[in-house]
Amino acid sequence: MNTFGNLFRVTSFGESHGPLIGGVIDGCPAGVTIDHSVVESFMSLRRPGSSNLVTQRCEDDHVEFVSGIMNGFSTGMPIAFVIRNKDHHTAHYDNLENCFRPGHADYTYHAKYHGFRDWRGGGRASARETAVRSVAGAIASMLLRPLGVEVCAFVSRVGRISMPRETESRYFSMDPIELRDRTICSEVRCPDFECSEQMTREIISAKADKDSVGGMVSCVVKGVPIGWGEPVYDKLDAMLAGAMLGINAVKGFEVGDGFLLSSMKGSDSNDWMYPFQDKFQSETNHCGGILGGISNGKDIIFRVAFKPTPTIAKPQMTIDINNHPIALDAKGRHDPAVVIRGVAVVESMAWITLADAFLMSKSSSPVE
Amino acid sequence: MNTFGNLFRVTSFGESHGPLIGGVIDGCPAGVTIDHSVVESFMSLRRPGSSNLVTQRCEDDHVEFVSGIMNGFSTGMPIAFVIRNKDHHTAHYDNLENCFRPGHADYTYHAKYHGFRDWRGGGRASARETAVRSVAGAIASMLLRPLGVEVCAFVSRVGRISMPRETESRYFSMDPIELRDRTICSEVRCPDFECSEQMTREIISAKADKDSVGGMVSCVVKGVPIGWGEPVYDKLDAMLAGAMLGINAVKGFEVGDGFLLSSMKGSDSNDWMYPFQDKFQSETNHCGGILGGISNGKDIIFRVAFKPTPTIAKPQMTIDINNHPIALDAKGRHDPAVVIRGVAVVESMAWITLADAFLMSKSSSPVE
Amino acid sequence: MNTFGNLFRVTSFGESHGPLIGGVIDGCPAGVTIDHSVVESFMSLRRPGSSNLVTQRCEDDHVEFVSGIMNGFSTGMPIAFVIRNKDHHTAHYDNLENCFRPGHADYTYHAKYHGFRDWRGGGRASARETAVRSVAGAIASMLLRPLGVEVCAFVSRVGRISMPRETESRYFSMDPIELRDRTICSEVRCPDFECSEQMTREIISAKADKDSVGGMVSCVVKGVPIGWGEPVYDKLDAMLAGAMLGINAVKGFEVGDGFLLSSMKGSDSNDWMYPFQDKFQSETNHCGGILGGISNGKDIIFRVAFKPTPTIAKPQMTIDINNHPIALDAKGRHDPAVVIRGVAVVESMAWITLADAFLMSKSSSPVE
Amino acid sequence: MNTFGNLFRVTSFGESHGPLIGGVIDGCPAGVTIDHSVVESFMSLRRPGSSNLVTQRCEDDHVEFVSGIMNGFSTGMPIAFVIRNKDHHTAHYDNLENCFRPGHADYTYHAKYHGFRDWRGGGRASARETAVRSVAGAIASMLLRPLGVEVCAFVSRVGRISMPRETESRYFSMDPIELRDRTICSEVRCPDFECSEQMTREIISAKADKDSVGGMVSCVVKGVPIGWGEPVYDKLDAMLAGAMLGINAVKGFEVGDGFLLSSMKGSDSNDWMYPFQDKFQSETNHCGGILGGISNGKDIIFRVAFKPTPTIAKPQMTIDINNHPIALDAKGRHDPAVVIRGVAVVESMAWITLADAFLMSKSSSPVE
Repeated sequence: MNTFGNLFRVTSFGESHGPLIGGVIDGCPAGVTIDHSVVESFMSLRRPGSSNLVTQRCEDDHVEFVSGIMNGFSTGMPIAFVIRNKDHHTAHYDNLENCFRPGHADYTYHAKYHGFRDWRGGGRASARETAVRSVAGAIASMLLRPLGVEVCAFVSRVGRISMPRETESRYFSMDPIELRDRTICSEVRCPDFECSEQMTREIISAKADKDSVGGMVSCVVKGVPIGWGEPVYDKLDAMLAGAMLGINAVKGFEVGDGFLLSSMKGSDSNDWMYPFQDKFQSETNHCGGILGGISNGKDIIFRVAFKPTPTIAKPQMTIDINNHPIALDAKGRHDPAVVIRGVAVVESMAWITLADAFLMSKSSSPVE
Repeated sequence: MNTFGNLFRVTSFGESHGPLIGGVIDGCPAGVTIDHSVVESFMSLRRPGSSNLVTQRCEDDHVEFVSGIMNGFSTGMPIAFVIRNKDHHTAHYDNLENCFRPGHADYTYHAKYHGFRDWRGGGRASARETAVRSVAGAIASMLLRPLGVEVCAFVSRVGRISMPRETESRYFSMDPIELRDRTICSEVRCPDFECSEQMTREIISAKADKDSVGGMVSCVVKGVPIGWGEPVYDKLDAMLAGAMLGINAVKGFEVGDGFLLSSMKGSDSNDWMYPFQDKFQSETNHCGGILGGISNGKDIIFRVAFKPTPTIAKPQMTIDINNHPIALDAKGRHDPAVVIRGVAVVESMAWITLADAFLMSKSSSPVE
Repeated sequence: MNTFGNLFRVTSFGESHGPLIGGVIDGCPAGVTIDHSVVESFMSLRRPGSSNLVTQRCEDDHVEFVSGIMNGFSTGMPIAFVIRNKDHHTAHYDNLENCFRPGHADYTYHAKYHGFRDWRGGGRASARETAVRSVAGAIASMLLRPLGVEVCAFVSRVGRISMPRETESRYFSMDPIELRDRTICSEVRCPDFECSEQMTREIISAKADKDSVGGMVSCVVKGVPIGWGEPVYDKLDAMLAGAMLGINAVKGFEVGDGFLLSSMKGSDSNDWMYPFQDKFQSETNHCGGILGGISNGKDIIFRVAFKPTPTIAKPQMTIDINNHPIALDAKGRHDPAVVIRGVAVVESMAWITLADAFLMSKSSSPVE
Repeated sequence: MNTFGNLFRVTSFGESHGPLIGGVIDGCPAGVTIDHSVVESFMSLRRPGSSNLVTQRCEDDHVEFVSGIMNGFSTGMPIAFVIRNKDHHTAHYDNLENCFRPGHADYTYHAKYHGFRDWRGGGRASARETAVRSVAGAIASMLLRPLGVEVCAFVSRVGRISMPRETESRYFSMDPIELRDRTICSEVRCPDFECSEQMTREIISAKADKDSVGGMVSCVVKGVPIGWGEPVYDKLDAMLAGAMLGINAVKGFEVGDGFLLSSMKGSDSNDWMYPFQDKFQSETNHCGGILGGISNGKDIIFRVAFKPTPTIAKPQMTIDINNHPIALDAKGRHDPAVVIRGVAVVESMAWITLADAFLMSKSSSPVE
């Protein structure tokens, strides 16, 4: 359904071509400083139209908060907000009322809801909905940053161009401020100049072919204290996995060395621990900062796989609502590589998930 | 926490070396035929001790149902059950009271719960707990099989030995009865004779080296009707991802072509649709049977990455509860490759997740 | 927190004197006919300003739906709506920033949220928030009325004026259309002409004394089939009790003969059952249509006690935020008897609770 | 369904005449001292067979904890326990397989679950299930008592014998240790000697008439700090109401002056506040310690109405599963006044609800 989270709960509403989209964040404690410029920075990171590599739909994404904030602080009440839809050209989608785009949710929504659906621009299934998650991610960040938590995601693969693991590792270790600056400066949201150039060419080439490309987002979370995550079913990595697979176009998730671990040996994959002050240190982080579903105090590392944008300008075979075959020639404005904007959504969902894990850990903390 | 699911809810309790483990399945509708031989088949698939490739802990895993069943049918009341722990040699774990095994949850539990923990055999973090999930998976299967749903998982990688995608694809298409038979016959739970042989050698070799290996489980679900999965936050793949990452030692999940999609083009990754009777057909299934978080009626396909068993007989460096360095020499009986027993747990969690999605789809089905 | 319900979930947001209030209804199935005139009828039933017996705050309560409806039908997506606040005179409440009204939530909100609160008009604690519940109740009614369910509430006590049980019983048995018409026609929402007259005088008298009065709402629900309510913790009466005590100013709830049963004997309080067609009939309904937490097919009957409006024009002793004593002389516009508008809120919460119970019963219905 | 609570979650299982009943308490923080004598005191308070005023079913109610406790402390893991059923004489209930007792849940369970039910002794609907709540209540008390919270319930009405409000008020103000001692000493769980005598006679008289009587439980909670309860839908009184109506045979709930408030004036029902140290004091407590759904630091006061035991030895008319009329002559052993054992269940559910509210308030507490 349309609420995410146990204690830090985000409820989302609105369709791509409806009057507005919006959300309600319930459970954010009182006393959080709400800084609108942070919200704006989250929105601008995901905003389409920032370069010719992404869709040209141009929304100013003005976020109007209508509840839960007083004198610049959260009040503990639900923080609600709306974002007006402005630049939606429903005409571009006219043929979608009766036809199911391959790779999209048109068919499954039509079938599940017996034809009752807002087909305009994909309705609720449109990536437009993720703007709500960005606002909620911004609020979550304002709750967690004072605790020293920082989340940095970046593109580590676009089509055939893949950032080497050693390079990725270097960026994971980088100061988060510098890492974010580099990421924001890149049109493809890749902090590595060389990779960024190649990825850009890969996207331009796909676009020229009326095609699209998939990609991967890598994410590092710093500063999470030991103890977030509630075994055995609300493990921190399980929560993150659910959050990430809930993002449009995401088809895979891994934590730490992930799938690579499936071909490794135990003697290579365990992170040895050494005493360090009152905690521990380790030279490796194969586990990605989570053991037994609980954060161990090291950087949390995960990756998210995005499929290529299903909407492409090339003709594709599909069916219409009368179950007749048709060749679809997509119009509308679409990202040739959704992974670019995916960076913002991955970061936001990570913030939201961490905020939820933080509040759960507060309630489960041992009695004094 | 210790309950999984929204409407088909599994609550698990018990520690590895406590008197018993058990579970409560709430929300199972009345009228489901409860066949104890099905429970037994689920238990025997995951039971350790079935070959020398897995741990030699020998539990008969007798499941005693204590609630929710009358005259062989579910009554709609909570189905509760207990499984006595018999073959636990706590002595083998004596040194674990004060020391944190690398790659295990010992440290994070100790820190999160301020030292209040049942350290014997890993307590709740032990894979012993997954026996509960097998029982719940068996009950879920009895709810769903009459609807025509079937779940088949198998090992598709062990360490360096990886089943080729074309081979995997062939098994995904196989009749599920035959596929299961082949899988059960293999000591390593791999339906392909050649791969199975190689995987067995890989495990024997690792064991000889006092080491362990990781692996991957592939899973196909057949017969799910169109319309399971509740967007935008209870998408079927998001639910599966959360379920799988909640399994011990799992570090990655992908649906359909998964991570491979991140390097593909849209023109190659969309599944074209053609009319077929009152539904549709497609030659490909890159999306893995789920679009927009909703099942589209095709086979649901996903993969799960397991890390190597962290407990190995080789000495490893770690710390004790006084934060002193020690070299740990593991005793106890452990799987050299958890992925083998992982097959049963992946299947069970898939059944449970699907049962939950089924019940949710009942409540969300359109009014007549 | 700010979401009510398990499967039919209502999330509410907005403060009394903020720009707007609104709500999100998640879980309403697709295909429900959305009739705006029904929404309007729910809003007008609770709207203040309808007579001089209630507060003179004059809101037109225009409900703008922004999500989840297409071509007049629900789509299965979240139904979201906003209602602008127009007629709020924050100036009337200026003194409330620093002072805690007795009988109100000012003090508890201030203390719980460490002073971070929207004190204007009571913020979230204001009865203004219940307008959201009326909209959600209207939507729930559109889901359930086609099933034959009808909810009718009316005022059965105002201060010292109490409708006799036999009279109440007569109205419970009345055709619901006629009962509603009579209730709406009464300024005090009491279907009995004689009682209505006396209650009006009671309120006028209290108002003249710069005072307020409490009251009671009686409610009958017709047409609920056998089987709604999920034991042992989501019993239908437990859900209704939680819903009703969640309404502002409500301090008591009883089902069937309620508190009267505590002084009765078993031989007088059991409802004997006689065969009737394929069901049963009974001459009495002491249990109020619910046995073991499950509807038994008879009328569901319950009562809700409202305390007097705490805001009165008489001076009262209280404290300010500096913990100094002050005499408070209330301004602003308030209902002398909240129970009148309580009728609409009781009805709405009943509809919402029943919609939730209905969807839960769908998922828990036995397999065929 | 069969789980109560949001963060302190109690899951109950088992039927009256099954092999055992049991429960799982999830969310209890680590570090709580588990004192078995406290559990025993809770069990003995509710245990039947303690006098000839209650049912003669004789269970020793030995509670076997099987999970979540180590060295006498909770570990943060699910606390699970089982209680064997010993003294159940299913033969007494033989006629119940085919017949529906009036005032019981036999008929509604039969209809809801399409005949799949454990009819023996009422199955899950039997008061036997409440033994689970007593254990959970005992655990909750061990979490909260160190915070200074104390819960005391007592019988304030049995049939026609009602404790006067002034007397009740005196007991509410009494030291809780003394109040409990007096309550436990009374066979009818009434701390007032005179009332107790009369109530005893009322029950003996009903029993002699082969009849039963209803009753009321009054409860006071001391020591709850300001700030428990989460508006607007998890108000503390709404949570308590849901908890209490979820108890077998309960038909009404009121907080503070409750239904009496419905006939009062605002000038009489507001609790004026005066400065007192860093908090406030008030001479009255009409609101019962809760304002706006949040505890205000005063005693929390509520009352619960129980209907008479529906099983009586007098013949009653009812129907069988073939919808034929029969005259039922009840056998089995039953309480002539369930309200006596209701005291223990009310206390336990209050402790559980408060534990839940406490954990929720931890997560919602403002940031520093």
